[in-house]
Amino acid sequence: MNFTDEKNEDGVTERGFTLEVAGNPVPGVLWLAQAAEGQRPLLLIGHGGGRDKLFPPLVASARHYARALGYAVVAIDAPGHGARAMPDQAARVAQHVRHDMTATGGLSADTLALMMRWATQAVPEWRAVIDAVQALTEVGSGPVAYCGLSLGTMIGLPLLAAETRIKVAALGLVGLGAGSAQLEAAARQVSVPVEFLMQWDDELVPRSQALAMYDALGSVQKTLHANPGRHADVPPFERAGWMAFFTRHLGGIPSPA
Amino acid sequence: MNFTDEKNEDGVTERGFTLEVAGNPVPGVLWLAQAAEGQRPLLLIGHGGGRDKLFPPLVASARHYARALGYAVVAIDAPGHGARAMPDQAARVAQHVRHDMTATGGLSADTLALMMRWATQAVPEWRAVIDAVQALTEVGSGPVAYCGLSLGTMIGLPLLAAETRIKVAALGLVGLGAGSAQLEAAARQVSVPVEFLMQWDDELVPRSQALAMYDALGSVQKTLHANPGRHADVPPFERAGWMAFFTRHLGGIPSPA
Repeated sequence: MNFTDEKNEDGVTERGFTLEVAGNPVPGVLWLAQAAEGQRPLLLIGHGGGRDKLFPPLVASARHYARALGYAVVAIDAPGHGARAMPDQAARVAQHVRHDMTATGGLSADTLALMMRWATQAVPEWRAVIDAVQALTEVGSGPVAYCGLSLGTMIGLPLLAAETRIKVAALGLVGLGAGSAQLEAAARQVSVPVEFLMQWDDELVPRSQALAMYDALGSVQKTLHANPGRHADVPPFERAGWMAFFTRHLGGIPSPA
Repeated sequence: MNFTDEKNEDGVTERGFTLEVAGNPVPGVLWLAQAAEGQRPLLLIGHGGGRDKLFPPLVASARHYARALGYAVVAIDAPGHGARAMPDQAARVAQHVRHDMTATGGLSADTLALMMRWATQAVPEWRAVIDAVQALTEVGSGPVAYCGLSLGTMIGLPLLAAETRIKVAALGLVGLGAGSAQLEAAARQVSVPVEFLMQWDDELVPRSQALAMYDALGSVQKTLHANPGRHADVPPFERAGWMAFFTRHLGGIPSPA
């Protein structure tokens, strides 16, 4: 894990890094309260399709978790995204998704297949990131939480199925339809507490498919949250509510400030 | 409004009262922080079927709202419940509901019709209680919140449709099926922010009926929460979460303690 840059602001240290996994350099960011020492919970944030590790709302919430709860927080660029995106590919994907948004029946088989290839690649990347970050003495081997919507959930489900260090997860904006047998199998293997978010009028995920995904989750403790609106209209209070959800399961550690 | 008794405990004053509405004495309880002065939000708590205004979890949460947020909190016995129950009637209703719980398809038309008669009677009772409680200088004309599940929602929906002083509501455990045209009409008239709770394996409310009720709510801001389990298995964190929901919409006032 090579740290590439560091920035200190409002009591939070933000460090960029690169970690090589299976020959690919994976770019990421780690947020920690300044002067953090010793073991603490680790929160993994998976961005959505077309976003990246420095999507401003993601960064704002990462900083808040680090400052207010003392969590270590890490985000990486998913395959095909952020510093890993090839401009041609990004344009092609955006075109795919724009097309799906105006069609009926949710994500097309093409878009879904591409995203599932990314998810399959992302799982060992996230696992290597957990190894590397927890090896830092200022993070340590505390409990791990995952949050991510849409593409962040397509990656999160197989990651949760594979990775026993993750103890709680906030997911959503993904459904079960044709071509999602792999996602369904992963969902059924999930056993940790999950908060699952859907949008009632999601143009990419038909209502019945989102409900079927919630139903398929293997967790004994799983809560569905739904709000009116389209795919991108998740109300801000939902992400804010994840903090109470994670704290309920992992606790917080006192802010060093 | 005649106060009948008073108890002070842990900084909260609990006063029993009776208010006559349309010739019926309605028994209630009012909780306030000791030494409360001036206007504050008012929370109405509607109990479920077979419960009453002194159901211990209701009392615990009323005391918490009064102490931690400074809200005035009031509960009344619904028609046919608590101090208003006739033993024969209570036994008959319990038998109805036990029967419905073992049948399929949710509440029977008989049970539903009885509950809707209670709801119709309860609406003017609650409105008179708001008048009387807000006339107290230590409560005043602040915003009003309502919470109540099951029977508390069958009463809450027509109350919300009729009463513009209520600005936010937590509801749930009621569906839309055969015989619920009156409830559906009320739901469509509701316009304030609502958090609507359902149980994924509710033996009294089929899943599709609960989803239809959420869908029918007229509010622009409405959030659905679902959890696995039967009608009575609502996880404690859901009621605890109402506090954040109400505070988000009505604020809190500093505890006098």
